Amino acid sequence: MVGNLAATTPDFTLEDIPGTSGRIDILCRCINSAFVLSHGIRRAVQVYLIFRGGPAPKMVHLRGWDLRHLNPDERTTAALLKKALALEADSKWRGSTPGISVRAGDLADLAVYGEGTTYYLREDGSDFRGLYSAGDGTFVLGDHIGLGEEDEAFLEGLGAKIVSVGPISLHADHCIVLINNELDRREAVNRDG
Amino acid sequence: MVGNLAATTPDFTLEDIPGTSGRIDILCRCINSAFVLSHGIRRAVQVYLIFRGGPAPKMVHLRGWDLRHLNPDERTTAALLKKALALEADSKWRGSTPGISVRAGDLADLAVYGEGTTYYLREDGSDFRGLYSAGDGTFVLGDHIGLGEEDEAFLEGLGAKIVSVGPISLHADHCIVLINNELDRREAVNRDG
Repeated sequence: MVGNLAATTPDFTLEDIPGTSGRIDILCRCINSAFVLSHGIRRAVQVYLIFRGGPAPKMVHLRGWDLRHLNPDERTTAALLKKALALEADSKWRGSTPGISVRAGDLADLAVYGEGTTYYLREDGSDFRGLYSAGDGTFVLGDHIGLGEEDEAFLEGLGAKIVSVGPISLHADHCIVLINNELDRREAVNRDG
Repeated sequence: MVGNLAATTPDFTLEDIPGTSGRIDILCRCINSAFVLSHGIRRAVQVYLIFRGGPAPKMVHLRGWDLRHLNPDERTTAALLKKALALEADSKWRGSTPGISVRAGDLADLAVYGEGTTYYLREDGSDFRGLYSAGDGTFVLGDHIGLGEEDEAFLEGLGAKIVSVGPISLHADHCIVLINNELDRREAVNRDG
């Protein structure tokens, strides 16, 4: 998930996240959509956030399998990101709170694209609902600004499939809810026949 | 949308919405899911929130067609609800900010159930995806506590259909995203053939 303006330092206030953090509120809602279930956390999900609102971009990695202290509300999630962004960041992953790590880097520095299909969410893409998928997938989403030409060329080079989740342009967090639901349904069919 | 513990007065703090408001954060996320699009507001949607965390329940009505000042983040939405809850409430609707009204009352006092089918979202319901629907619908959802026996008896009396949105139990705001997407898809099929 790319935050084009998202602050790379913790100098934003939890009293006005949209106005002071470069829209980290959008990333917080994406984290909620990716992980939060009625009775727990999606343990098999991992999220990489890209913070581009500073001279050197940073990445935060959230791992469902050992994530702790995640509440569904925006403010406490923003506080977790604030903690991670306060750490020194170089090219190695450095642990913050349980299940959350941070490093310097951008989309191209991630090593996740080999694992299964990479999907790029864009409103003119093929409907993900009808699309065959197998194994793990990586889903790349932009914030309110979207992804630029350079990002798109990088994803094209990876052979990413361009997909959409419906006939109307939605916020990234809503797209994640729809992708998770589609994967839940496929898993249930595979399990129950 | 029923908030079983949701404060009926504005005496909660925006610095800790989950901890001080009886989980009005849940209602705020539902409002986001119901109305927020990438480039605008779902003008044809209306939401009734039930606040039960006080001696006399209150209802807040949000109308997509004249709703203003709605941002996607939780805090500014909670501030709008705080304003509405500060008004005097009796059995008549009283306007707060544009598109938002408040009155005293509970689920049974609403006059919306005649308009099309009423659906009650429960995890063991029939899959809404495969279900025929026509015209307007009313969708009744509970918060983390759900609905009680009395509510269920009332909805059964109305002939409400019990539906679900997938194989896993989800928060109400995620359910609303899924319902909206299903209705978007049906509308697109009806429009484009």
